[in-house]
Amino acid sequence: MKCPYCNHEITVYRNPIPTVDIIIEREGKIILVKRKNPPFGWAIPGGFVDYGESFETAAAREAKEECSVTLTSLQQFHTYSAPDRDPRMHTVTTVFIATAEGIPVAADDAVDLDFFTEDTLPEEIPFDHRRILTDYFQFRK
Amino acid sequence: MKCPYCNHEITVYRNPIPTVDIIIEREGKIILVKRKNPPFGWAIPGGFVDYGESFETAAAREAKEECSVTLTSLQQFHTYSAPDRDPRMHTVTTVFIATAEGIPVAADDAVDLDFFTEDTLPEEIPFDHRRILTDYFQFRK
Repeated sequence: MKCPYCNHEITVYRNPIPTVDIIIEREGKIILVKRKNPPFGWAIPGGFVDYGESFETAAAREAKEECSVTLTSLQQFHTYSAPDRDPRMHTVTTVFIATAEGIPVAADDAVDLDFFTEDTLPEEIPFDHRRILTDYFQFRK
Repeated sequence: MKCPYCNHEITVYRNPIPTVDIIIEREGKIILVKRKNPPFGWAIPGGFVDYGESFETAAAREAKEECSVTLTSLQQFHTYSAPDRDPRMHTVTTVFIATAEGIPVAADDAVDLDFFTEDTLPEEIPFDHRRILTDYFQFRK
């Protein structure tokens, strides 16, 4: 990167950036959120993990922020790290499966949310979330 | 951080830093490596993931660099992200279980390596690797 003050080139060590995604189950369906920011489409709720925050804490925070629900169970599913899975930069995601209480309401980076089954998934699904959902529905069988 | 040229304070977004660790199995034992750098002790082989590198590729690279072996199978086990798991900074690790071919020889960040069972683990094990190994041996039962 370049220093914004003196414009000198500075070496900043770059790493893949961790995120979490949470597959929230309710009555045989799962929640997807409609994204406010690109890449658009219906995604598994989730987001960036803060420095000093465990992935489990980040999952609970993101479920609250984007879906307004409180997690009641949390199980780690799988971590996805392909460099091209996110068109913005190299992010990786640890995916959780969860249950939650509360009335789901879209907020923060989500403009809408809805419940889906394997047979009613929307057409536009960003990132590698379609592949993740395929793995998830396979795992649940 | 501060710009090394003009000394201005610059905001660099900080994230937990991804690493991988590989539990390499052979004839009922697993490989641990004696670390050259702090924190010292016998650790599961592994290291930092490069930007643009998948975790699976990083696992194969680290197994080659530290143990001189070529992975022949690779299975994702679990991701550990507690902020205090690494005394240096907030690193997270995705742990794999693997088999490998080749004669194991310590190299790079490892000064020695050896094979261990659950009953012969060394005393000094850095990071949260003892907990990871406890989970692993439980998983294998």
